Amino acid sequence: MGNIKIAIFGHGNIGGGVSRILLDDTHSLSRKTGKNITLSAICTPKPQEDAQIYKSHPELFRDADDILSDPEISIICETIGGDTVALDLVKKALQQKKHVVTANKKMIARHFTQLHNLAKKNGVFLLYEAAVGGGIPMLQVAQSGLAGDSITEVEGILNGTTNFILTKMEETNAEFNDVLVQAQELGYAEADPTDDVEGFDAAYKLSILVALTLGVHISPKKIPTQGITSLRQADFKYAKTLGKKIKLVASAKKIDNQVFARVCPVLFPIESRIAKTDGVINAVNFIGKYNTVGNFLSGEGAGRFPTAAAIISDIVLIARGGVPLSPETKEIKNILPASQSWYLRFSVYDRPGIVGEIATIFGKYNISIDAVHQIDHQESPAHFMVTTFPVSQEIFKKALKEISLLGCNTEAPFVMPLREEGSFLDL
Amino acid sequence: MGNIKIAIFGHGNIGGGVSRILLDDTHSLSRKTGKNITLSAICTPKPQEDAQIYKSHPELFRDADDILSDPEISIICETIGGDTVALDLVKKALQQKKHVVTANKKMIARHFTQLHNLAKKNGVFLLYEAAVGGGIPMLQVAQSGLAGDSITEVEGILNGTTNFILTKMEETNAEFNDVLVQAQELGYAEADPTDDVEGFDAAYKLSILVALTLGVHISPKKIPTQGITSLRQADFKYAKTLGKKIKLVASAKKIDNQVFARVCPVLFPIESRIAKTDGVINAVNFIGKYNTVGNFLSGEGAGRFPTAAAIISDIVLIARGGVPLSPETKEIKNILPASQSWYLRFSVYDRPGIVGEIATIFGKYNISIDAVHQIDHQESPAHFMVTTFPVSQEIFKKALKEISLLGCNTEAPFVMPLREEGSFLDL
Repeated sequence: MGNIKIAIFGHGNIGGGVSRILLDDTHSLSRKTGKNITLSAICTPKPQEDAQIYKSHPELFRDADDILSDPEISIICETIGGDTVALDLVKKALQQKKHVVTANKKMIARHFTQLHNLAKKNGVFLLYEAAVGGGIPMLQVAQSGLAGDSITEVEGILNGTTNFILTKMEETNAEFNDVLVQAQELGYAEADPTDDVEGFDAAYKLSILVALTLGVHISPKKIPTQGITSLRQADFKYAKTLGKKIKLVASAKKIDNQVFARVCPVLFPIESRIAKTDGVINAVNFIGKYNTVGNFLSGEGAGRFPTAAAIISDIVLIARGGVPLSPETKEIKNILPASQSWYLRFSVYDRPGIVGEIATIFGKYNISIDAVHQIDHQESPAHFMVTTFPVSQEIFKKALKEISLLGCNTEAPFVMPLREEGSFLDL
Repeated sequence: MGNIKIAIFGHGNIGGGVSRILLDDTHSLSRKTGKNITLSAICTPKPQEDAQIYKSHPELFRDADDILSDPEISIICETIGGDTVALDLVKKALQQKKHVVTANKKMIARHFTQLHNLAKKNGVFLLYEAAVGGGIPMLQVAQSGLAGDSITEVEGILNGTTNFILTKMEETNAEFNDVLVQAQELGYAEADPTDDVEGFDAAYKLSILVALTLGVHISPKKIPTQGITSLRQADFKYAKTLGKKIKLVASAKKIDNQVFARVCPVLFPIESRIAKTDGVINAVNFIGKYNTVGNFLSGEGAGRFPTAAAIISDIVLIARGGVPLSPETKEIKNILPASQSWYLRFSVYDRPGIVGEIATIFGKYNISIDAVHQIDHQESPAHFMVTTFPVSQEIFKKALKEISLLGCNTEAPFVMPLREEGSFLDL
């Protein structure tokens, strides 16, 4: 039975969970892999603060250079986060011909090609199951479980913080800012929630999913991303009358040599599996050439032990051998859907004739309106909503620009796509 | 780049799908594995009936002995079904040191230990992703995706035919026999539907899932199995008033050195993910030491190409290497839940005092009744339903036996477990 020695860099919530599992489940891990998998080192700036583990295993705490130059350590587990210190460490580890396992979505999404090339050049593996979907094995399903299929479309709820906020807004009639405070108090949102609520976190994860499923790397900054901060109770009320729910959805589809990828709030049919995914739960649906209904996965997208267990599953994969080949990705054009239906909310000073003005502009661009709805007549500014039939992206943008210039708007019109039952992304 | 040559035995719906994918996706399979994977032989009793493929590739059609003695063929794909001819073939293939990939749940469930021992002895792999959950990669998720966790409980909807029938009964108010005919006309149920509607098919699949997740092999005939043939519209009506849905659920849980496994209709809270799985869709939820909310998967549980793609994913796994070690299973005691809530339906000649007689017997055994409900007063026999608070299995059985002997019953009382929100199997 061979030996595999692991070093963990960063020993906070996730790293601490990884060391706990490695120490507790030694027997079960060797039964699963036929190897002795042992925790050999921990690198953290203040080891003394890890009271419990430092007391029982002080010898594990070593400095970075010592660990990186130790030929016996074959897997580096990076749980520092971010793409400064962590990136530097991961590069060094790969150059030292050590496998790297990480939960760091920002680093992987931003430096995907560079890091994979480095791993390939040094003949080692770079795995990051925990970076996307937390405890849900999205990457293994995409790369191994569905390896007999060719995935053509992927969409999901990849951020638990925003899904929790949307669910609460729907249930309690509270506005975004109030629910955000509540989420922060419960520990579901960070003090600086920008990455979550603006959709950036979901975009990092989508970038990784797209690379592994569609074979295309799109830098997260090239993914059109809209967060949830502009949503209002008015939107949730009207969604209900439409039989829809609002979800922050990351989606991507490949057609020939073009790819479409986007993160934004979407109105989903209430009966769809995505719409039924509530609270902090994450979910993803993989649609393939052969699984046209999709393979749908949902579970805990974050949390100490689900995430740490995902990191361990990567270690098991390396110990067993048979890691999927490094993805061959190419850079291709990121496009927008050719045509789709839209939901628009206008916040206006309620004066007669506004609906007519807006409808006239839509008419001029030959955009068919499905419905116009006004709620909260008493309020000023008043909200009214318009839903359209499918319209080409280009024409819709022009009409929207012209409408935005009307003096009646108190703020920029809020728009989000409207999905029909059963349809996916019609390009 | 190495070569891997495949032979397919049985060339019906699934086998034909496998050969189609092997012929069409050669390039993508070699990109995923770094190997040349080629279809080398097909064995089927009437090759001439495979008009299209026989015309273009007549050289592929060979007889069994010729294929089994061909040293170049390393993987046998068995799609014959059943455990007579198929079992004999699979044993021979393993003895010839060929890997075996199959969709045959009955054979694997019934001969699990024997076949795995034979594979181990000959140093080859035996894989069967397609046998459980069709196109849903349940086994890879259980064995690899969640390898960092320890699965403690598994439950799911493992049979699409019965889930379709239950969904239709709920939606259309039609009784079982009428919906069964409809399912047969649509091709969702076989001419002899016994294996599906009596729950045997789900029990085969549960037996396999239990072996791979809980490390215990329970022969399918030792799994208490109740089908859906006794369900009536009265049950669906009352389920609705309780905020529940009726699902045929396969569930298992391990506690210390005992395991509980069962297939039966269960009343599930309408908001649960299992209850929301409708139509021919299959689903499974894996609860683990670290993923306590569960990892939930749903998708196509049958169908030509989803199932064939699952077979191909096993071939990819063998080609890559890193197949999970043969499961170490042991035989342990199959137990029943210590205590749970029940739903009972009595079909009785409506005469005064019946409810009193039944309630008196429950009282005698100290079983607390949650609710008593009678619907369809006009009908004779009349139905009334009782729901209980949690009660020990042993006591419940005694009370039920005594009630069954009352002269008022026109048929044996119908019983099924009642699940509360959030709870799993409380043992």
